[in-house]
Amino acid sequence: MMTRSELTALIRRKKSFLCVGLDPDMERIPECIRKNSNDPLFDFNRRIIDATIGKAVAFKPNIAFYEMHGSKGWESLEKTMAYIAGHRAGPVFSIADAKRADIGNSSAAYARTFLESMPFDAVTVSPYMGHDSVRPFLSYQGKWAVILALTSNLGAADFQILSADGDEAVQADYPNAENKLYEVVMKKCMDWGSPDNMMFVVGATKAGMLGSVRQLVPDHFFLIPGVGAQGGDLPAIASVAMNNEVGILVNSSRGILYASSGDDFDNKAGEEAARLQEEMEAILGRQFSWAG
Amino acid sequence: MMTRSELTALIRRKKSFLCVGLDPDMERIPECIRKNSNDPLFDFNRRIIDATIGKAVAFKPNIAFYEMHGSKGWESLEKTMAYIAGHRAGPVFSIADAKRADIGNSSAAYARTFLESMPFDAVTVSPYMGHDSVRPFLSYQGKWAVILALTSNLGAADFQILSADGDEAVQADYPNAENKLYEVVMKKCMDWGSPDNMMFVVGATKAGMLGSVRQLVPDHFFLIPGVGAQGGDLPAIASVAMNNEVGILVNSSRGILYASSGDDFDNKAGEEAARLQEEMEAILGRQFSWAG
Repeated sequence: MMTRSELTALIRRKKSFLCVGLDPDMERIPECIRKNSNDPLFDFNRRIIDATIGKAVAFKPNIAFYEMHGSKGWESLEKTMAYIAGHRAGPVFSIADAKRADIGNSSAAYARTFLESMPFDAVTVSPYMGHDSVRPFLSYQGKWAVILALTSNLGAADFQILSADGDEAVQADYPNAENKLYEVVMKKCMDWGSPDNMMFVVGATKAGMLGSVRQLVPDHFFLIPGVGAQGGDLPAIASVAMNNEVGILVNSSRGILYASSGDDFDNKAGEEAARLQEEMEAILGRQFSWAG
Repeated sequence: MMTRSELTALIRRKKSFLCVGLDPDMERIPECIRKNSNDPLFDFNRRIIDATIGKAVAFKPNIAFYEMHGSKGWESLEKTMAYIAGHRAGPVFSIADAKRADIGNSSAAYARTFLESMPFDAVTVSPYMGHDSVRPFLSYQGKWAVILALTSNLGAADFQILSADGDEAVQADYPNAENKLYEVVMKKCMDWGSPDNMMFVVGATKAGMLGSVRQLVPDHFFLIPGVGAQGGDLPAIASVAMNNEVGILVNSSRGILYASSGDDFDNKAGEEAARLQEEMEAILGRQFSWAG
């Protein structure tokens, strides 16, 4: 578990809001690991974690890349989480990028999976099924639901940016919103959780939208994917998305994990994480006296 | 894999459109199993499958109940699927009730998990992230994406039934729809898949809505949860939701699994499945000459 003030303190101490996505793709894991390891997912992660934990405040395994390998992949995930939880350079925030949600009793089972059985601090949650599918993830002290609001993929345009009228009570509270579906999602979710147990995924490929989202949602943390491989621009994004407690985590996955396909992959991953952290430190220095 | 005509033939042969939800909740699994088995999830499922496969056309494990037990739970799921795939009373349709979806490469990993690594015929998919999150589930010959449209839980009212305007091209094609979000979801998804590789989840607690959904979506199979524990009424539901090829699967989970908490749980589950099958046979007999 990690409270909002603890996470903010970690960001201030490391002068970083970097989240490293742990998405180990067997086809891109360097040959030196694939050939010599009994558990390539874990051994790849272990070296990535060691190389980047000094520069990152969060790790985010995408569960798809583990689940693809069945029970053996789940063992790799469990070992990865135990390794993070016991790391001497910790504590560090951890997010299960699972995009789960179901009817109440099934959502409760998913929440237990990640927040109780495994030592994750947070889970990403799909909002489509509404309040009783989201609430089970909000009932753990010091743990978090990270709600998908505006995602970074092309398909975000299919439903998330449709005008979603029809909820006058909500509109009355937020007269300035345009009532795109992703805005209605955020507004309703703010009634179910607080800035202390709920974050939002807001895609970085839409820097223009990020600023208006921050006006609508001043206090909640945003998890911002899509920097690097998905094309977001860090200074532009951070300047519009930060709040006065920083309030953002920016994720990079492939740009760090696959910086090199050779035996030096962990050194190169560490260099890429350091490069991003330096960029973040400069951004923070322009905005906050404690980072100057 | 099972094609639409094969699934329809199975429904006609068994005079049943029953889907049995395999949601093994450790707190409700009978003591005789919990105390004497090294793998209670699998042993519970095995006896439920044996007792109900004669009356059911589909099984639907909800992945939350396995994932909750980590890698060991995944082993139970893998054994359950191998047991179903090799059952002498098969073939039977199988649905991974996983409610997955992510950006393209992660969705592709989820699709591989269930449709390639495990022998599922179908996966339930959450539509919020749009076309590139749904498409990977549609690329397997004779396999299916089952899209969440209108779910059976209370939270369905939060977003799914909002008026979602703003897509005039879609509206022009379907002038009679009310443009609730779940309708827009179905209309767009029909452009991405066909009745041969896509079904929709349409909750049974809204029998009134089911009829108008069927008018909008004449050919696709509906997976209808919520009969039994969630309160739906089978004849009312079936009469409005069926199409001229039947075109529905009705799920029952808790009503069958936990019909008895004693050692006779499998017999009682079989009796409940038989009762539902008889009710379905009567419904089919009123509508189709082949079932009379």
